[in-house]
Amino acid sequence: MGIDKYINRLNALEFGKMHQDDFFLTWERSLDELKAVYVVADALRYLRENNISSRIFDSGLAISNFRDNSTRTRFSFASAANMLGLTVQDLDEGKSQIAHGETVRETANMVSFMADVIGIRDDMYIGKGHTYMKEVAESVEQGYRDGVLEQRPTLVNLQCDIDHPTQSMADMMHIIHHFGGIENLKGKKIAMTWAYSPSYGKPLSVPQGIVGLMSRFGMEVALAHPKGYEIMGEVEEVAAKNAAASGGKFTKTNSMAEAFKDADIVYPKSWAPFAAMEKRTILYGNGDNDGIKALEKELLAQNAGHKDWECTEDMMKLTKEGKALYMHCLPADITGVSCKEGEVCASVFDRYREPLYKEAGFKPYVIAAMMFLAKCKDPQATLGALAAGNNSRFIG
Amino acid sequence: MGIDKYINRLNALEFGKMHQDDFFLTWERSLDELKAVYVVADALRYLRENNISSRIFDSGLAISNFRDNSTRTRFSFASAANMLGLTVQDLDEGKSQIAHGETVRETANMVSFMADVIGIRDDMYIGKGHTYMKEVAESVEQGYRDGVLEQRPTLVNLQCDIDHPTQSMADMMHIIHHFGGIENLKGKKIAMTWAYSPSYGKPLSVPQGIVGLMSRFGMEVALAHPKGYEIMGEVEEVAAKNAAASGGKFTKTNSMAEAFKDADIVYPKSWAPFAAMEKRTILYGNGDNDGIKALEKELLAQNAGHKDWECTEDMMKLTKEGKALYMHCLPADITGVSCKEGEVCASVFDRYREPLYKEAGFKPYVIAAMMFLAKCKDPQATLGALAAGNNSRFIG
Amino acid sequence: MGIDKYINRLNALEFGKMHQDDFFLTWERSLDELKAVYVVADALRYLRENNISSRIFDSGLAISNFRDNSTRTRFSFASAANMLGLTVQDLDEGKSQIAHGETVRETANMVSFMADVIGIRDDMYIGKGHTYMKEVAESVEQGYRDGVLEQRPTLVNLQCDIDHPTQSMADMMHIIHHFGGIENLKGKKIAMTWAYSPSYGKPLSVPQGIVGLMSRFGMEVALAHPKGYEIMGEVEEVAAKNAAASGGKFTKTNSMAEAFKDADIVYPKSWAPFAAMEKRTILYGNGDNDGIKALEKELLAQNAGHKDWECTEDMMKLTKEGKALYMHCLPADITGVSCKEGEVCASVFDRYREPLYKEAGFKPYVIAAMMFLAKCKDPQATLGALAAGNNSRFIG
Repeated sequence: MGIDKYINRLNALEFGKMHQDDFFLTWERSLDELKAVYVVADALRYLRENNISSRIFDSGLAISNFRDNSTRTRFSFASAANMLGLTVQDLDEGKSQIAHGETVRETANMVSFMADVIGIRDDMYIGKGHTYMKEVAESVEQGYRDGVLEQRPTLVNLQCDIDHPTQSMADMMHIIHHFGGIENLKGKKIAMTWAYSPSYGKPLSVPQGIVGLMSRFGMEVALAHPKGYEIMGEVEEVAAKNAAASGGKFTKTNSMAEAFKDADIVYPKSWAPFAAMEKRTILYGNGDNDGIKALEKELLAQNAGHKDWECTEDMMKLTKEGKALYMHCLPADITGVSCKEGEVCASVFDRYREPLYKEAGFKPYVIAAMMFLAKCKDPQATLGALAAGNNSRFIG
Repeated sequence: MGIDKYINRLNALEFGKMHQDDFFLTWERSLDELKAVYVVADALRYLRENNISSRIFDSGLAISNFRDNSTRTRFSFASAANMLGLTVQDLDEGKSQIAHGETVRETANMVSFMADVIGIRDDMYIGKGHTYMKEVAESVEQGYRDGVLEQRPTLVNLQCDIDHPTQSMADMMHIIHHFGGIENLKGKKIAMTWAYSPSYGKPLSVPQGIVGLMSRFGMEVALAHPKGYEIMGEVEEVAAKNAAASGGKFTKTNSMAEAFKDADIVYPKSWAPFAAMEKRTILYGNGDNDGIKALEKELLAQNAGHKDWECTEDMMKLTKEGKALYMHCLPADITGVSCKEGEVCASVFDRYREPLYKEAGFKPYVIAAMMFLAKCKDPQATLGALAAGNNSRFIG
Repeated sequence: MGIDKYINRLNALEFGKMHQDDFFLTWERSLDELKAVYVVADALRYLRENNISSRIFDSGLAISNFRDNSTRTRFSFASAANMLGLTVQDLDEGKSQIAHGETVRETANMVSFMADVIGIRDDMYIGKGHTYMKEVAESVEQGYRDGVLEQRPTLVNLQCDIDHPTQSMADMMHIIHHFGGIENLKGKKIAMTWAYSPSYGKPLSVPQGIVGLMSRFGMEVALAHPKGYEIMGEVEEVAAKNAAASGGKFTKTNSMAEAFKDADIVYPKSWAPFAAMEKRTILYGNGDNDGIKALEKELLAQNAGHKDWECTEDMMKLTKEGKALYMHCLPADITGVSCKEGEVCASVFDRYREPLYKEAGFKPYVIAAMMFLAKCKDPQATLGALAAGNNSRFIG
């Protein structure tokens, strides 16, 4: 059967520790574990394309907790839950008492009596999101051990202050499919570069997630940004270490052109300086609205000095044969379309629209695969049973 | 089996073009296609009444996008989706970036990776709702052709600026059931009349939908309103053309009494003048709040001159044997109950409460039938399979 | 089979009247009916623990109407619905027209075409919540009789102004499990006492629900509060009558220590005086914001005079062997943790955290059991069929 291809691939990987575990940061997972996510994501897509139900749950809840607005990730999470048979229940904090300390543990347990999965997005404040997720995960782990919860809900990080693993993993799947396999990535160059946007304060988790993940596959990862737009130092260290281990390279530059030079892949995207985000977190903590306004003004002025950081046709010409794969997590700030001056010119964006949408289309499968590997004790057996069961997703 | 009755009826109809197609306006669909909706709606009701599951989806999403508040249509859409096995996922625009132009295409694709159906209500601004829906439908059609989407989500118009097909189709089912079949409608008179309400700005899509649909069945459709409350000219033309083609009549009058005279069915309901709604759309576009307030004041004053447009017992006496079927899309403005002076007097409303509620009860089935016909390649076979499968909806 | 234990217990009880009926107040139900809820809740838990699907619905809606914010009850309701196969559809009143009188009947029918269950929380205004629920239940009963609704949605009171049955029933299950069976409760003493909180206006339905229910089992129910914090007189009468009938006792005191003395169970919790809540309801009705502010100030001042009503270690020492079971509906106001001075000291709360979480964990099962008994004609047969069907909840 077609499913055997995926089962055989899984058989060659070690990923047993993913069972009953959470997914916080890609660099906490082994390469085999990341590969297992890609294989299961492809397998779930195979099932769907063949109209075979991938429901492993007859009932059960997937709790979603979005501490920021979200369309793409929200729908991806809902799609992933639905694909596996779970019902999403939103934890709307406006209507709840989730706060700090003691209460996190309590609410985490109170909403999890029937929860198989918890998905959290909390990316706004430096030093908060990841910490909060850890606290939730530990709380439900404790609840499970105490017999409070009958199952151990596993947590999927839908974006924190450090990493955005469902995004970077979907991006990586796009790259793998584009280049025809992980084995073809060695030596490829990816430019993760800052780009100008008329807004400010875009999360760091995307560039951090990209350099933290792409450095695992023997690629040359070139991080480029104007001076002052440094990302989190500890993630740079992770990227450097990864690159060394995988036989790749991690380089830094303050020139967009240098990064684009001979690149196979470019990922130009605005983000806020890490130091500024740290400052903003403190200002928010102090309720210092004047301080926030002043900071915002300062950051916009700083941004305005770098309008030349745009992914133009000229920039694209610098890349490998002028044909690098352009990537973005969407929505992009497109010059003359969604804003006056932005991250990318309209003609480049238009040429890559279809692949960009396909890039985004991997996310529901990546999330579902993370859930699948966390919940199933023997994923190969479960995939086999789904294919053998051959229940139609749609009978019309 | 009981289901054969419905299958046989479908066998006599041509509706193949509905497969993978959207439902925007009733007058874009052939009479056979409309009849197919009624038959499938009845068939789904038959299944439910016999406790047979009508789930054709084991999983999948139905995206809902309500750009206005809604209770009835929201619940009808949720019910229809649930009946077929789909999970509703709301696209809350407060939390999304859906806007104009470029972004519509992008968001439409981003939310549709697992979407089988998209339902949209967007009726507030003249020249906007229908256009927006077309744009969404074209976007996902393109996405499907490009391989971005694995299935082609079909769009159901849950109310636009031009038509309210799920309402008018449910209303029509009520009429068909009341008079014992479509074949009995020839020559029947329906009065679609304006009625006074203390509010202003009620959508035109209801009267437009009614005259645009009811004129298909050989009935006499009498449109009545005070001078100045004209509906969209192009819909009047549609109604006139329909009436000519179906051997019916489409008449216009500025007298409620004239319309009620010998009517078999009356549908008295407030709406705003089309010209005023066009004006309001422009004012909103310009953010002209003073202009909007002035217009509102003007419209309320205009309304106040027509308080005699009320469906009273005396008015009802003018109808065929004084027993016309009173209809309304609900909620009605009931004199002395929900307002001081309104569309209908309490005694008339009370006498028709039960049939009014039944009228509303057709809507979930109509929406489900639209989805069913858009998704199923061979609806007769699928209905047969559901009946033969005989899975209980409820096993208690 | 393991399920037989529960079926046999049900066979010994009379609860036929629960079928197609609503659940408003525990004291409207016979002792056998309450016991049936406990047995079915345990049976559903048994199924879940054995990974056997408890879905009795293949599709269908559970309407939720939360007129106040809620996390715990909202998730419990969602969990219960999901466990049985129903999809929750929220009736968000901000988006609906539910109001008073005529409209309640209409909206209740409009949202219920596919509704199997309606859950309502409406506890804010004295004399309103229970009345509203009755009106909704009567409306859908009428709709069902008229043929408007194809099934009769049953109502579950998720908290009203009089009772909080899903809370008190879950609390009671906790007590039953703690003491090893209903038969062991005779003569046990439970102290339902007021406790200080820095907030005001906490609902009376919890203490009322507790004294109204716990008095059914031959226990000594000691209600304690400072002078002026009287609960609803008619509920006190219910408790007294219950106690007499069950061979228990119902006592009242204005001393926390007296209530704690030799208690087997303590339930210290803040609430607002009934008379003040009546006053507030009138002020809200009149839109008297100044009056509300004045009342709030007065109540906070009144509260401040009773900071000694705290469940401290010293208080706990007064209880039976110093080891009473500490209970709370959560979230509690914990001194030094969630507030400066509160209902309970941190060390007592911490010692009982695990049992408190377990107490809360009964609620989804209690709600599911109420739904199950209202919907299933022969619950024993349905439980047997579920166990025999042996469909996995999760196949991974």
